[in-house]
This record gives sequence, structure tokens and C-alpha cells, in this order.
Amino acid sequence: MKLGRISVDGPDGATPRLVLVVPEEQRVIDLRRTLLWELEQEGASYDSALRYAEGVFPGSMSAAIGLGNSFTQVAERINKSRPDRYSLPFDKVTWLPSSDPSVVRDGLTFVGHIKGFHEKIGHAPNPCLLQIPGYFKGTPHTVIGHEAEVAWPGYIQHMDYELELGYVIGRQARNLHPDNALDHLFGITIFNDFSARDRQAIEMPIGMGPTKCKDFAYGIGPWITTVDEFADLDRIGMEVRVNGEVWGKGDSSNKLWTIAELLAWASLGEVLVPGDVIGSGTMGGGSALELDRKLQPGDVVELIVEGVGTLRNKMGQPQEGIWWPEERKPFM
Amino acid sequence: MKLGRISVDGPDGATPRLVLVVPEEQRVIDLRRTLLWELEQEGASYDSALRYAEGVFPGSMSAAIGLGNSFTQVAERINKSRPDRYSLPFDKVTWLPSSDPSVVRDGLTFVGHIKGFHEKIGHAPNPCLLQIPGYFKGTPHTVIGHEAEVAWPGYIQHMDYELELGYVIGRQARNLHPDNALDHLFGITIFNDFSARDRQAIEMPIGMGPTKCKDFAYGIGPWITTVDEFADLDRIGMEVRVNGEVWGKGDSSNKLWTIAELLAWASLGEVLVPGDVIGSGTMGGGSALELDRKLQPGDVVELIVEGVGTLRNKMGQPQEGIWWPEERKPFM
Repeated sequence: MKLGRISVDGPDGATPRLVLVVPEEQRVIDLRRTLLWELEQEGASYDSALRYAEGVFPGSMSAAIGLGNSFTQVAERINKSRPDRYSLPFDKVTWLPSSDPSVVRDGLTFVGHIKGFHEKIGHAPNPCLLQIPGYFKGTPHTVIGHEAEVAWPGYIQHMDYELELGYVIGRQARNLHPDNALDHLFGITIFNDFSARDRQAIEMPIGMGPTKCKDFAYGIGPWITTVDEFADLDRIGMEVRVNGEVWGKGDSSNKLWTIAELLAWASLGEVLVPGDVIGSGTMGGGSALELDRKLQPGDVVELIVEGVGTLRNKMGQPQEGIWWPEERKPFM
Repeated sequence: MKLGRISVDGPDGATPRLVLVVPEEQRVIDLRRTLLWELEQEGASYDSALRYAEGVFPGSMSAAIGLGNSFTQVAERINKSRPDRYSLPFDKVTWLPSSDPSVVRDGLTFVGHIKGFHEKIGHAPNPCLLQIPGYFKGTPHTVIGHEAEVAWPGYIQHMDYELELGYVIGRQARNLHPDNALDHLFGITIFNDFSARDRQAIEMPIGMGPTKCKDFAYGIGPWITTVDEFADLDRIGMEVRVNGEVWGKGDSSNKLWTIAELLAWASLGEVLVPGDVIGSGTMGGGSALELDRKLQPGDVVELIVEGVGTLRNKMGQPQEGIWWPEERKPFM
């Protein structure tokens, strides 16, 4: 089953809607409206049916996934019938991020990228990387969906993409063990961890994690494919194209930490919430840094993941006039 | 004006309520119930008054602050009359975190702590710290309020507190300049950035920011004091006591980066949301690390901030049986 979020015009302005995605028919089906119609056919009053349908299919993917079976069973039933009514063709859709995570997390699991990245920046990976599955946390307020333009703050010179899987959490979790961690995985989406390499070089040495080098945009979309549709999560084909040209191609194999280990680790001592997105880390060769290349304003970046689809984003123009701090004098 | 959040029993279980805090009378006033009563006195129907009062005073402090003047003006009016009805004495209150931030951010601004911390860990501050105002992002799902017990995951040996101010954001903001950043500050709360020094030593070198060394608990409370009540935000008295003994005492002066610079920096390229809490960074001498001491299970930590009050938390017992990853072999 493929599930997404779109924006439609309503009497109060733009409003988010959950949709069932049917890529082979290039259309989406509005889930709330479909359920509302079904309930009315069964004799429910409009007001009561609407209240119920709003509960099952809110505008938030996180809230929907958080409902558990009450959400997925109804969505699966509609996925079997795939009615024609309340459909919208792809070319009329405004996509939203496929999930609205409470926290964006991003791991570092593909051996090929860890090697490639450290060869380019000219030093060996810190040995601590072998002790624990490193990840960083990003702001949830700059996630963007398929076809959205990527903000480019003017203080960024060296712009890059990162080709990643997004692991979408299905159930609230704390202190998972790898043996049961995958039970908490709802599906796979595509995750583009846009990265400013020049800013990253200043931020990483501080040790407090990325801020301005990452938090300007996280691409999440175009939709979520539920885990049952994948034969092997460690053999998913992945590709990145810039302006139509293939810049990287590979698959999701060769990980330092398994998906189960990454999820379990992220859950230790804190809380994974339904709809949270955890980036897999960049596929080996899945960043332009590894190719000695960089993005330019206006470039179109496509991340293609087998079993999901294509997440396409165009880089915006640099935004000038943003304040920047003055360097301080050493004090010790 | 002092505003807080408490938990009360309702027909659907525990429910959060916004309260006006009157420390000198050791009581809180339920804001929604008070407004509901006022509206009914003016002739509004119960249902309509409730719907409106729920809008003005939701259970979320972030949602309330996000309303802007429609929230603060009504709260200020109630603060002037301070009615007796719908009051609860402090000794019957279950406190919630004073805000429910979308993101926890924590800066590093007090020169005294930067010096003290680096002397103890035995190396100089990274020069990048002089270029930009470093901060990290924490999960919002482990914030705890006044009098809540602090979770102690068993993988933590070296437990510490950090005495900080919490800057509560008042208005949505992006790309602020320091000249107007303070217009976006709603108030001050107390922030305890509990820290596992042994875990931190493994996580910080990876460069992706703190995870397990911080994300187990963030103390935020006991309430928020609005900025208009402070004569000078850079001269706020601060103190920490452990089991009643003073372990640190100072004030909010001597910063490497001003509050305005920290807020502006945090807003660059991304979004500050009403109710977000940005930690000031630890006051010089505001951690036990600087004293060669550490916390033990059962210790009671009190952070006292002039103009706000006391945030008191008791350390829990270590939780055993949590999975831990096996170290990997070097691969390059």
C-alpha cells in the first residue's frame, strides 16, 4: 500500500489530506472523503460520518499512523476496491511531505558513504563510529515534499544532496531490542538530506551536531510504501539524477548497522513516535561530495528508490541579506 | 505574569491545563475554566463559551502562545483580577513541563562554563566555537516538569545536571536579526539539561550531536515568567542545590553570544515556533563536572532562578536490561 499527503484548497485555505497513491494509474484517492461516502451509504448521518472519518484520516500522517490498525485496516480495504470517485490525477496534485515527523533523525549506516566521505574530507572516521550507531536530529519545520523548491540560504556556497531511505516509524517505542525493532517500522519513503558542506566543516567540530548545514531543508516523499511490499529491505535499488543525468546508483546493502539496530538505538532512553522519519544515512556514492561535484541554483535533483518512486526537487535561488555572526576573540 | 501547565484528572484520563501561577499565594488559577465562567456571566451559552475558551486556552502552552495577543490579553486580564474560584493550592498540583516545545534547543553561551568544561575534559575549546553560536537539538518527547522523577537509563554511569535559563519563543520566526530577535522572546523558564558525561565522551567525537547522553530527560519548569517582569536578562541570579546543599551560584552575565544573537542564529534558514525552548547553555559553575562531582540515584536537584522560582527533580533509579550495541571492527 502506498500512502501520501497532498494539499488542497478549502474554505479556510490550504488543507492537508491523506491519500492512497496508485502510481500505475497516476492518481491518488482522497481517503477521508471516500470513507465519508461509504459511511453515508451505510446510513450514517453526514455529521457523524464526517467526525468519524476525520478521526480515521486526519491531515497528519503521524496522527493517522498513530491510530494503528483502526487506520491501516480501513486504508487497506479502500486499497482493495480503489474506487474512481474522489480521485485526483498526479498532474493536479500538490504534494506535501509524505510524513510530518515530530523529529527528523538521520543515521550513518552505509559503509561506502562513510569511506567516501572521509576520503574526501581527508581524515579517518572517528573510532567512536564503531562503538555506537551515530545519528543526528533535525528540525521538523523545514521538511518539504515532492516537487517542492529547496530553500537556499545565501550563506551556503557548497550545496549537496544525500540519497537515503526514510524509515517511517509505525508504533510508539522506547528501549527497543533489535529482535523486535522491525515490528515498529511502518514503511519506506525517500529522504533527501540536503547538506551544506562549507557550513558543515565549521559546525561538526563543535560536537553539538549539524544546525545550519542541514536544517534548511529535508526532502521527504513522494509517498510511503508500507513494509509488506518489500521482499528485502537490504536490497532496494537506489539512484540519484541531477538534471536528468545519473550521478549515483546502487542499493541499500552493505550497512555498518542493521535497520533494526539503528531503530533500537534511536529508541534507547527516549521515544520514537509514529510518523517519525529516520534517515538510513547516505548510500555509498549517494552524495556529490564523493564525486567532487556540487549543486547549483536551479538544479533538479531526483532520488529514485525501487518500490517507492521518485522524489524530485528543484534547488531555489540563494536568499541574500541574512545576518551572520561576527567571530569572537579567543578567551582561553 | 507567570504561566504554567498542570495535569488534572478528567473523564478521559489525565488532561493538561494552562494555569496562571500566583507564587505569593501558593496557588494556580485554571485559565480555561475561569474564562468559561466569565463568558457565561456575559450571557454566552455553555457550548459556545467552552468552544471559545478551549481555543484561547488549549492544553498546549505552545498552541496558546502561538495565538499571540488573543491569548496574552485574556491571560493578563485574569492576572489583574486573580479570582478565587477555580484555584488549586500548590500542594495539590501535578506540574507538567511549563512549555511543550516542538524542538528542544540548547546553546553554549556562558564563558565560565565553556572554560570550566574544557579544563575538566582536558582540551581547549574548538576554535569553531568562536565563529558561530553552537547549539544542539534535543528530542521534545522526554521533557519533564517540576517535581517529576528523572529517568536514569542503566547505561549511564556519570550523571550530571546543567543549570540553565530556558528562553521561551513567543512568535514564529525565520532569519531574525539580533536587532529584532528579542521581540520574539515570550518569557523565561528554568531548564535542566541533564547530561551523561560518560556517554557524551563517546558521542561528541562523532560530530552528529548528543543523543543518548542528553535525550533521556530535559527539565522544563516550574513555570514561565513573561519577559516584562525582568529588569535585566543579563543579571538574573541562578543557583543549584543538590539534596539541599548549594553546589553552584552565580548569574546570567558574561556571555560569549547575547540572547539576541543566539535566537537570531537559531532562526537562520529554519523556523522557531511559539513555545519552543532554547537553553541558554550552562551557567559557569552550573554543572557538577566542573566540581569533580556527580549525581547519584535518588539525589534531589533544585535549580533556582531569580524571578522564576525553583525547578526541583529527583533522580530515579537506574533502569537495567536495556540493549546495547556490539562494537564493530574497523573497515578502513
